Amino acid sequence: LDADAQPDPADLFTILVASDLHLGYCDRDELRKNDSLRTFEEILRTAKENKVDFVLLGGDLFHENKPSRSTAQQCATLLRSYCMGDGGINFELVSEPTVNFGHMEKQFQRINTEDPNLNINLPVYSIHGNHDDPSGSTYLSELDLLHTYGLINYFGKAVDLENIEIAPLLFAKGNTKLAVYGLGAIRDERLHRAYLENQVTMHRPEEATEEWFNIFVIHQNRPAHRGKHNYVPETFLEKWLDLVIWGHEHDPVPVPVLNKEMGFEVLQPGSSVATSMSDGEGKQKYCYLLKVAGRRYRVEPIALETVRPFYIEDINLTAIGYIKDDGNADVIRDDVEKFLNKKMEKLIRKAEEERRPQQPKEPLIRLRVDFGNVEPLNPILFGQRFFGRVANPKEIIQAVKSKPLGRNNRNGD
Amino acid sequence: LDADAQPDPADLFTILVASDLHLGYCDRDELRKNDSLRTFEEILRTAKENKVDFVLLGGDLFHENKPSRSTAQQCATLLRSYCMGDGGINFELVSEPTVNFGHMEKQFQRINTEDPNLNINLPVYSIHGNHDDPSGSTYLSELDLLHTYGLINYFGKAVDLENIEIAPLLFAKGNTKLAVYGLGAIRDERLHRAYLENQVTMHRPEEATEEWFNIFVIHQNRPAHRGKHNYVPETFLEKWLDLVIWGHEHDPVPVPVLNKEMGFEVLQPGSSVATSMSDGEGKQKYCYLLKVAGRRYRVEPIALETVRPFYIEDINLTAIGYIKDDGNADVIRDDVEKFLNKKMEKLIRKAEEERRPQQPKEPLIRLRVDFGNVEPLNPILFGQRFFGRVANPKEIIQAVKSKPLGRNNRNGD
Ligand SMILES: [Mn+2]
Ligand SMILES: [Mn+2]
Ligand SMILES: [Mn+2]
Ligand SMILES: [Mn+2]
Repeated sequence: LDADAQPDPADLFTILVASDLHLGYCDRDELRKNDSLRTFEEILRTAKENKVDFVLLGGDLFHENKPSRSTAQQCATLLRSYCMGDGGINFELVSEPTVNFGHMEKQFQRINTEDPNLNINLPVYSIHGNHDDPSGSTYLSELDLLHTYGLINYFGKAVDLENIEIAPLLFAKGNTKLAVYGLGAIRDERLHRAYLENQVTMHRPEEATEEWFNIFVIHQNRPAHRGKHNYVPETFLEKWLDLVIWGHEHDPVPVPVLNKEMGFEVLQPGSSVATSMSDGEGKQKYCYLLKVAGRRYRVEPIALETVRPFYIEDINLTAIGYIKDDGNADVIRDDVEKFLNKKMEKLIRKAEEERRPQQPKEPLIRLRVDFGNVEPLNPILFGQRFFGRVANPKEIIQAVKSKPLGRNNRNGD
Repeated sequence: LDADAQPDPADLFTILVASDLHLGYCDRDELRKNDSLRTFEEILRTAKENKVDFVLLGGDLFHENKPSRSTAQQCATLLRSYCMGDGGINFELVSEPTVNFGHMEKQFQRINTEDPNLNINLPVYSIHGNHDDPSGSTYLSELDLLHTYGLINYFGKAVDLENIEIAPLLFAKGNTKLAVYGLGAIRDERLHRAYLENQVTMHRPEEATEEWFNIFVIHQNRPAHRGKHNYVPETFLEKWLDLVIWGHEHDPVPVPVLNKEMGFEVLQPGSSVATSMSDGEGKQKYCYLLKVAGRRYRVEPIALETVRPFYIEDINLTAIGYIKDDGNADVIRDDVEKFLNKKMEKLIRKAEEERRPQQPKEPLIRLRVDFGNVEPLNPILFGQRFFGRVANPKEIIQAVKSKPLGRNNRNGD
C-alpha cells in the first residue's frame, strides 16, 4: 500500500493489531497492578481514535488462565466502554459463523456485531495464547466467557488436535476480500508433530480463491533455538499466506519481515506489558494499524505511551576496573555498592527526564552485574533504599557470570 | 389483590420471585450437574411466559463463591437467551441509580434496561447470598461481574458494615409506586449487632412516603433456634414494610405469613434445588408471581416442574419388629438389608410413577434408618446396586439414633 496510491476508503480495511496484553499481570503488586489494563485502555482508545474496523489480538489477552475477579471486571468494563455504542460497522462477515465459532454454544455461533440485542461498534477478534488457553474437562478459556458475554469474538479454537481444521473468517469491505485464519496456542511439540503428520488443514475459500488477502494469526514459539521440535518453522506454513501475525514472542519487531522462501511477511507485534526483565521486554512497545485494500497492505506501528519505563544495564565490574586481585574484599564491596547506587540514581534521573506524560512514574530498572570474584550484593538489601522510587525494588540486581553482554533470549511467553 | 377486583393492567406490576438457585451445585456429578441450571431455565421461561416486569432473586444465585467457568458460561448463556430481545419495558426506575448502584464502577451505576447499547426485555434484580457474597481485597462477588456484563442488576450490596444504608429501588408503573429495599447476606451475628446498635438505616422516599408498596429482600437466618444472636428477628425490621422476601431458608413456605405484631407479611420462597438431604429440601419447590397494584398485592406460587424427585423415609427397625434382643445378629443384618432393598425398589417404582415429564429420571432417595442395636449397613456398599437408578447412590442410608421422627432443622443455606 503505497502512501501515494490512496485506495478508495470504501475498500480499505483498517485493523488495530496487538498481542500479549497479559491483563492481570502483577495484579497483587500495588504499584504495577494496573499496568496491563492501562495499556489495554490505550490500545482500545487508539483503535477508537483511528476508527478502525476491528481489533485483532494475537493471544495471551490474560496473564493467568483464571484471571482474578478484579481483572475480569476491569477488562469487561473497558470492553463495554470502548466497544459499544452507535456508529455503523462498514464491513461484513461472509463466512459461515457456525463454522468459525463451532466451538461455542449454538446461539453464540456468531459475531457480536450481528447480535441485534448488542450495539457493538468496535468488534474485538482474538485467538487464545498459552496463558489463556482452554482447560479442564469442559475445555473452556476465559475467552469463551467473554464471547458468551458478547464482549469479544473468540476464534481459532481447534477442538480436535488430531485434525486441526482452520476455517478463515472471511470479511468483505467494498472490493477488498480479507481472510483471517487463526490458531490459538497449542503445545509447540504437539503442533510441530501435527504439521509433520499433515494434521493441519487451512480451508481456503473455493470462490475467488486468489482474490483474498490472507492473514494467519498464530501464537507459538518462533525461533528454532528453544528446541528442535519446540517451535513452528515458518516453512511449515502455507505459501499463499500474505501476512502472518505472530503472537507469543514478547520482543517486538515493528516491521513486517519478508520470508523470501515462503513469499509471505511476518509481523511480530510483541507484548504490551513487560512480563519479564529480558532485553526484548525493555524495548519500545507498539500496537499497529494494519491497512488492507485489495491485496495490498501497509503496517503502521504506533508507539504505546502508557508502558512503564524499563531500563536494563549490563555491568562487568572487572572490566571497568572495580575488581582487582589484590584488593581488600570489604573495601571493594563497599565501593561496588556505592558505584551501583550512583548508577541507580543516574538511571532514576534519566527515567524522570525521559518519562512521557502517560507513563507511570516509577521505572523498572534491572542491573545485570558480573561481580567477578566479589560476593554479589544481596538484591533485597540493595533494593531497600529504592522502595517507592522504582517499581521493582526487590529485583533490581541480577548477578550474572562471564557473559558481560549476554542476552536472555527467552522472550516467548 | 382480590381476584374479583381486577386492577388496571397499566398499574399492575408482575414480578417473578425466586431464591437460592445455587447454580453450579453438584457440578462435578455427571448425573446432577445440570439440575440447578435446568431449573434456572424453567424460572426464566416462566417469567417470560407470564410477561413479568422483572425477576427478583433473593440471593445464593450461585452455589460457590467462585463458580466454575462452565457454570458461569451456562448462567450467562441463559441470561442472554431469556433476558434480551425486543419488547418494551413498561415501568420506570425513578430512584437515583448512582445511589442504588453506588458500589459499581461509575458507568455501570445504572440498570441494564437503561443502557442504550443493550436490548434487555426481562431485567433480573438480585441481592447476594452468603454463598455468593463479595470477597477478597476488591470486595467483588460474581454478581458484580454479571452486573458489569449487563446481564443482571445487582443491588443491596452494603459497602460500610458499620453503617448500613439501604436506599430502595423505586419503581413506578401507572399509579403504582413500588419500593424494593435489598440487603445482601451479612454474617448473622454481625447484622444482629448492627440492628441492635442502630447501624441499619432504610431510606424511605420523602415524597408521597405513604403511597409506596414496600418490599424488603433479605438473605439471613430466620428462625431463632440457630443461636441467640445468629438470626434477624422479624421485630428488628420496619413496621411500615408490606412484604419481606426472605431468602436463605431453603424450606419453602409458599404463602405470605402475616406477622401480626409488625403488620407485614413474610414470603419465604425456598430454594430451587436441594443442596442437602433435609426434610425442607424434599418438599415441592416453587417460584412465585408477585402482583402489585397500588398498595394491594397477591402472591401466586408456581410449582417448579424440573426439580429432581426427592424422597425421604424414616425407618425405625426396632419399632417395626426387625430387631429383637435374642436374634442372631448376622441373620438380622441380612434381613434388614433385604428389607431396605425392598423399600428402595418400592420408592424407585413410586418415583417412576409420580415423575412429571420435565423431571430428571433418577430420584434422590434418603433412608434415615435407626438400626437400634444392629451395626448399621455400610452406605457405600448398600448403594452399589442402585448406581444409575438413583441420583445419590453413595448416600442413600443415613444412620440415625433414637429419634425416629427426628427432623433436620438446618435448612438455612
Ligand atoms: Mn504466549
Ligand atoms: Mn505472552
Ligand atoms: Mn444462603
Ligand atoms: Mn441458599
